[in-house]
Amino acid sequence: MTPIAPPVPLMQSPPGAETVIDGVRYLYFAGTGYLGLAGHPEVIEAACDATRRYGVHSATSRSGFGHNPVTLEVEREAAAFFGMETAFYYSSGYVTNHMAVQALAASAGALFVDAAAHFCIEEAARLAGRAVIRFRHRDPGHLAETLGDHLRPGQQPLVLSDGVFALTGAVAPLREYVRALASHAPAALVVDDAHGWGVLGEQGRGSLEHLGLWTATVNADAAADGVKLFVGGTLAKALGGFGGVIPGSRSWVDAVRAASHYYDGASAPPCAAAGASARALAIVRRHPELRRRLQANIRQLRAGLGGLGLEIGDSPAAQVGVSIGDATNMRRIHETLKTRGILVPYIAAYSGSGQAGLLRFAVCATHTPGMISRLLDELRRVL
Amino acid sequence: MTPIAPPVPLMQSPPGAETVIDGVRYLYFAGTGYLGLAGHPEVIEAACDATRRYGVHSATSRSGFGHNPVTLEVEREAAAFFGMETAFYYSSGYVTNHMAVQALAASAGALFVDAAAHFCIEEAARLAGRAVIRFRHRDPGHLAETLGDHLRPGQQPLVLSDGVFALTGAVAPLREYVRALASHAPAALVVDDAHGWGVLGEQGRGSLEHLGLWTATVNADAAADGVKLFVGGTLAKALGGFGGVIPGSRSWVDAVRAASHYYDGASAPPCAAAGASARALAIVRRHPELRRRLQANIRQLRAGLGGLGLEIGDSPAAQVGVSIGDATNMRRIHETLKTRGILVPYIAAYSGSGQAGLLRFAVCATHTPGMISRLLDELRRVL
Repeated sequence: MTPIAPPVPLMQSPPGAETVIDGVRYLYFAGTGYLGLAGHPEVIEAACDATRRYGVHSATSRSGFGHNPVTLEVEREAAAFFGMETAFYYSSGYVTNHMAVQALAASAGALFVDAAAHFCIEEAARLAGRAVIRFRHRDPGHLAETLGDHLRPGQQPLVLSDGVFALTGAVAPLREYVRALASHAPAALVVDDAHGWGVLGEQGRGSLEHLGLWTATVNADAAADGVKLFVGGTLAKALGGFGGVIPGSRSWVDAVRAASHYYDGASAPPCAAAGASARALAIVRRHPELRRRLQANIRQLRAGLGGLGLEIGDSPAAQVGVSIGDATNMRRIHETLKTRGILVPYIAAYSGSGQAGLLRFAVCATHTPGMISRLLDELRRVL
Repeated sequence: MTPIAPPVPLMQSPPGAETVIDGVRYLYFAGTGYLGLAGHPEVIEAACDATRRYGVHSATSRSGFGHNPVTLEVEREAAAFFGMETAFYYSSGYVTNHMAVQALAASAGALFVDAAAHFCIEEAARLAGRAVIRFRHRDPGHLAETLGDHLRPGQQPLVLSDGVFALTGAVAPLREYVRALASHAPAALVVDDAHGWGVLGEQGRGSLEHLGLWTATVNADAAADGVKLFVGGTLAKALGGFGGVIPGSRSWVDAVRAASHYYDGASAPPCAAAGASARALAIVRRHPELRRRLQANIRQLRAGLGGLGLEIGDSPAAQVGVSIGDATNMRRIHETLKTRGILVPYIAAYSGSGQAGLLRFAVCATHTPGMISRLLDELRRVL
C-alpha cells in the first residue's frame, strides 16, 4: 500500500514531557495532556483491562444495552470530581456544545459567540437554527453592545465561549459576561472548558472555579430565571482520558441526553476510553499534588517567558500562545529549538491565532523544573 | 457514591452471539456488531497493544503531532477495503454527515432528507444553513416531487439518506434517487452506510455495492457534473472497530478534512480504537468467509421470520425491525423471550420506529445455525 498522506510527523510514544516523534525523543512542550496522564501506566492498563472485560465497545447505543460497568464508572467519577449529581459521558468532546446548544435551543432567541471561539463552538451555534452574532474576542463591553443591538424584546440570549482558549491560554472574562447578561435575564452562558478542567481552580474544576463562579446553580436548571451558567468539556486533555463529559443535575443531564442523540443514537464510547477515563479521574481526585505540580510548572514557564520580555498575559493556564515577530521568525525559532531536541509548535492558523500565527508553549505536570529551565535557556539563545 | 442513574441493563461481557447482561448469559440478537469483531481476541489485543505503545491517545489534534503509526494504519486499511486512494479516520461515526454536509454546503442550494433518516443525518443537514426538506421514507417519487417543488433554477440539491436504516434494516432505493436527481444535475447524494458496510455487497462495501452503484465516481470529485455519490460511515458496527471513516479520492478527503474541524480541532481517536479498527479491517479483508457466514445467517433468520408469517421486507441487511401487533404484545414477546434466555430488543421510539415501536432482530457472523433455529423455535411458541 502506498502512503496515505504526504509525510506527516509521527508520534511514536505516548505523549508526555518527553515524546518520541519521527524517531527522536524530544522535550515536548505541545499538546493538551496537561496532567501527563495519557501515558500513565495505570491509566493504560485500565484501558486494556476494560477492553478485555467488555470488548472494544458495547456495539450499541446507551439506550440499547450499551451501558457497562466501566461507562457508568466514568459518569460516577466525573460527577464526584465536579461535585454534581450525575454526568453524561460520550465518545467525543468536540460535540459537547452541539448537545448543550440543542438542549437550550428552544428558549434561545439569539446566540452570541466569542469571535475567536473554538471551531466546535462556532459549529454548534448553527445547530440552534437561530441568529448567530459574534462579539469581539474576550470583550464584555462589545458583548453588552451586541446584546442591546440584536435581542428583540422578550428574547433570551445564549452566549457561547471557551473557558480557556486553546491556542493562547487566555481565560474568558466570564464574570463580566454574567454582569452583561444580568439585564437580559433569563439568559444562558455556555462555557466549553476543555482547557480549564483539571488545570484551573482549587479543585481543578476549571475556569468557573478559578473565577469564583462555581456555585450550586451551575449546570442545574435550564428553566431557571437569572443568568444560568452551563459548562461542559472533554476528558481528553488534563483529565487524562478520552471523550466528552457534561456533569450536572439530573434534570440538566437528562435534558442534554434528550436534546441530541448521542445517548440513544450513537455508539457508547470505546471501553478503553472509558477504562482510561475512569482511572484517570480517580487519579486526579486522589492526587491533588499532580495539579499543584502542574501549577508550579505553569508559574515557572510563564515567569520565564515573561523574563525573556515576551508578552504572555496573566492567565494561569497550562498553555500560552506567544507572538514573536513575524511568521518567518517564529518558524525559525520552532526549527532551531527542534534541532536542539525541544518541540514547541508554531501554529500558523487556528481559532484565535491571528495573521502571523503563534508559538504555543504547553507545560504538563510531569515536566521537571530542569526541563523547563532548559527550554527557557535554549529559547533565550534563539531569540 | 450513589448510583448515577435509575437501574439500567448492564452489559458485563463483550457483545457477541452470547452476551452477559445483568449476570445472565443471553443468546443475543441485538446491537450492531454484525461480524462479531467487537469481542474478537485479536482485535482486543490490538487495542491493548496500541494503547501500550502510543498511550491513551496522542493528546493533540491531527494537525498537531496527532498522527501515530496506528492511526495511519486505519486509514490505509480503510482505503484498501474500499479500494480508494485515501481515507479520513475520526473518533465518532455520528459526525460523518456533519463533515460531509459542510464539505458540500457551498454548492448546495437546498437539502432533501429522508423523513426517517437517522438522527445524526437530520442534525447534520442543519449545518449547511440552507432549507431542509423532508421527503417520504424511501419514496423516490416523493423525492422527485419535492425536488421539483423546492429547487429554484440553478440551485443544486443535496440529498441525504441512510444506506440501510438502523432499526428496520430496509435499504434505501438509491438507484431510483440517482434517477430522480438526473434532471437536476449537478446534484449530490450523501449516504450514511453505517449499517451497510461490512454486511452488503460482494466485497462488503455496503449498500452502494449491493445496488450496483459502486463506481470510480463515488467519493471522487465534489466539483463534478452529473449526480455525485458520497458515502461515509462507521467502523463501530460490522467492521468491528470504533470511530468514523470517510474514504475517497485525495481531493474529496482533503475537502472533508478542511470543511469541518475534526482534523485540526479535535483530539485524534483513542489509540485503542485505532488499534482495534486497523486489526478488525485487516481481518475483514482477509476473511471474506466471515461475511459469507453472516450472509448465510441473515438468510436463515429472514427465511425463518418470514416462515412465521411476519412481514420482513426483502432486504439483505443483518437487522430486521418487525411489527407484531401493538406495543403491549411486542413487550410481551420481548419479555417472554428474555425469560427463555434470548434477547431481542423492543424499540419503542427511534427514527423510523413508527407509533407502536418494533422488535428488532439482529444477527451476527458468530451466531450458529442452531442458535438462530432456537430463536425461531422460541419465537414460534411465543407468537
